[in-house]
Order: sequence, then structure tokens, then C-alpha cells
Amino acid sequence: MNIVLLDPRQTTNEVWSISAQRQVQHLHTHVGVQVGDSLKVGIRGGKRYLTEVVDVSEQRIQVKALYEEAVPKKLPVTLIVALPRPKVLRRLIMDSVTLGVEKIILLHSYRVDKSYWQTPFLQQLDQYVTLGLEQAGDTIAPEIQLYKRFKPFVEDVLPSLISADCPAYVAHPYTDQVMPHAIQHPCSIVIGPEGGFIPYEIDLLEKNGCQARHLGNRIIRTETVIAYVLGRLFSAG
Amino acid sequence: MNIVLLDPRQTTNEVWSISAQRQVQHLHTHVGVQVGDSLKVGIRGGKRYLTEVVDVSEQRIQVKALYEEAVPKKLPVTLIVALPRPKVLRRLIMDSVTLGVEKIILLHSYRVDKSYWQTPFLQQLDQYVTLGLEQAGDTIAPEIQLYKRFKPFVEDVLPSLISADCPAYVAHPYTDQVMPHAIQHPCSIVIGPEGGFIPYEIDLLEKNGCQARHLGNRIIRTETVIAYVLGRLFSAG
Repeated sequence: MNIVLLDPRQTTNEVWSISAQRQVQHLHTHVGVQVGDSLKVGIRGGKRYLTEVVDVSEQRIQVKALYEEAVPKKLPVTLIVALPRPKVLRRLIMDSVTLGVEKIILLHSYRVDKSYWQTPFLQQLDQYVTLGLEQAGDTIAPEIQLYKRFKPFVEDVLPSLISADCPAYVAHPYTDQVMPHAIQHPCSIVIGPEGGFIPYEIDLLEKNGCQARHLGNRIIRTETVIAYVLGRLFSAG
Repeated sequence: MNIVLLDPRQTTNEVWSISAQRQVQHLHTHVGVQVGDSLKVGIRGGKRYLTEVVDVSEQRIQVKALYEEAVPKKLPVTLIVALPRPKVLRRLIMDSVTLGVEKIILLHSYRVDKSYWQTPFLQQLDQYVTLGLEQAGDTIAPEIQLYKRFKPFVEDVLPSLISADCPAYVAHPYTDQVMPHAIQHPCSIVIGPEGGFIPYEIDLLEKNGCQARHLGNRIIRTETVIAYVLGRLFSAG
């Protein structure tokens, strides 16, 4: 936790109260927070401040804003990823948010087990987003969309995300073209499930404007490839 | 598991036996392996083959080599990383191996809890390496070294890893210089612990030839930053 994220409703008075158990406990246990300390606090969906701690109790920490700080910029990318195994979902969302992905789309695919769509973890996405924002020092949640059917998404939604200035790349081992690097424009990036997309899916993606690009001849897990490809694509900054 | 890794001693006859419970179980449960199937098999420290399955039983799967396949190339990088929390260690080693890191150095640092050096997980590094190699389709284990003292490593060992053709970069938020991308030469990359290196450590690293480079103003977890920075540095390929 590198900032404490508060709801806008918690910041209407001059003194703001941090009262969520998770946050208070972290500040006591890991930061050892005391009156007079400075603390980075973000308002969800809004600005970020350096604050001063004015009161500390077991259940509540109170702060006053000192001055505004810059919120880190997002990466201009829509990450479209086949719904992973539930236990990978938390890390995938948290990492994507930490790295600054602007929009995340979770998509069905042939090799996605249908039971994954029933996981209670899908009800906790907002919690993973909060953890990712607090890690990065960010305040703006990415948009997250779920598409439980592959074909309608690829045929009806994906084309609207693609333009001459904003291409879409699907990471795919069986192509001659290598994934670009240090691009200076927005894009969408499509990442398949464990075992990859099936040929029919790659065909449909390509027919609808997506460009297949390989990442070398190592096979990388979904949750690892996201950071790897984002580091590659947005290395111009 | 994208290849089955065997010990050279298991491949002295014409027919090779896969008998490790973990591997056999994976091939039965996830691959549904049958006689006549082709199977990618690597010899640890050696070559990689496409093989044909010639016998299948509950406890053992037997294969015969058909032809040799290319082993993926390593990234020419030494990853020097502050020893992470035990539960992160497995993922960190596995991801680094999957991505092709040539040499991994686990290092002590002021913000590394001394108890981390007592974790039984440090006895299982070889197992994590195997998982990373089987994920990537690689056969060559990276060298792994452990240094329990920061200063002697930085003063006595680090300089020998650095040359005009092989710089060392430390990821550090408080510098004007940005991490390079798409480099065409080998390098070392130094990654700090949770909370970062302390100023004394950054000073000592810089005095001994390491260049501090930032990765933007997001704070990224150790286990995520490794894939991110490798994607950035080695995007020329």
C-alpha cells in the first residue's frame, strides 16, 4: 500500500478519517503511523494528496491535506484477456491496475473452463482494483468489462476498439511477425487462455482487424506475459 | 508444463521412461496422453526433442525420440534481486526462469527481513527452476547464487559483472534517468526489496558502477516489475 485510497464521501470535511480495518491495520503494523507523520492519500476517482496525520487511535487514523500530488498517468491500452483460473484472477487484475492499464476486458474462449465464470472472485474485482491502485499510487480505477461469449465480442465489439491510430495485437506463437515495441500510440492487446486460442479464434480475431504477433519462442504464463508485453509495448516513455 | 523435463540418466536407453509422479499425473489429467501421441521432452542441461509415446500405464509413460527441436535462447541478463518474502520467491524464480534469465542472484538488503533467509523455500529453488523450464520449453537451468551480505557483494562481486559492454542498472524511482529499452547488449539489472533500497545502498551501488534508472512514477511490486523490466530491456529481438 503506497497510498491510502478513500471514498470521496470520506473527504468532505477538513479532517479525513481512515477507518477501514484493512487500511488502519496496515498503517499500524507496517508503517507504525504516528501523529505528525506525513501520509499519501488518494480520493478514489479524484486527486491525490500528501496529508499530515492529526490523530491516531486503534480503530481510526485522521489526516489533513497538505498539498496535491500528481496522479500517475495511465497506459493508453485496452487489455483483452481470456478469463484465467480463479486463483490467477486477483493477481492479473491487481498487476494490470498497478501497471496503469486503462481498460480491462475479461473474455470467454474455447479453452476457458465455463466454471470460471461462476467463481465468487468475480464479485471481488473492485477489491483487487483498490489493491492495485494503492500499490501504484493511482486513484483512477480502470473500466472493467466481462464478455461471456467470444464470437459476439470479436465480431460486434472488437472492431469498434480498432482504428488506424489504435491497432489491436493478439499475442500468438505461430506467426512470423514480432510484437512491436516502444509504440507511441494507443492499442488493444489480446491475451489468450492457458493453452492458447484455438485456430478458429485466431482466424476470427484476424478477420476482425486484430494483428497476430509473437513474443519469441518461450511459452509464458498469462499472468506473467501481461507485465512482459506492457513493458515491451510502452517502453518509449 | 509445455515440455517434460527428464534427467540425463533417464535417457540413456532408446526408450525413455517418464516416472515422476508430478509429471505422470499432469500428462494423465491435463493432456490425456495416449500411445501414438507426440510429446515434447527436454533433457535437463541438454537437448530438446519431439518424442512419440510408445507405452502408457498408471505410473509410467514411455517415449521414443523422433527429432530434435530448438531450445529457446536465454536473455543475456544477470538478475540481482533482494530476497523477497518466501511466498513470493517461488513465483519470482519461476517467472525469471520462464522468461529466460541467464543468471539469478538473491541478495540481502536493509529492508529484507533476516528471517527470509531461513525459509525452507530456499531449499526448493531447484524445483521452481524445473517448473519454469517446463513452462518455457527450456532445458538449461540458470545459475543461482545467494549473497547474505549486501556490502561485500556490491564491493567485491558486482564490479566483476560490469563492463563497458555489459552495464548494470538499478531500478530506482528517485533519478532523472529513465531505464533504457530495446538494448542490444547484455546487462545486469538490480531490483530492490519491498520499500526499496535505502539511500546508503543506492549510493554504494552507484559508487560500484551501477546506474540508477527509473521506470515511471508507478510503484510496482518486485514480482511484477521483473517481467515488466525484462520486456522493456529486451524488446529488440
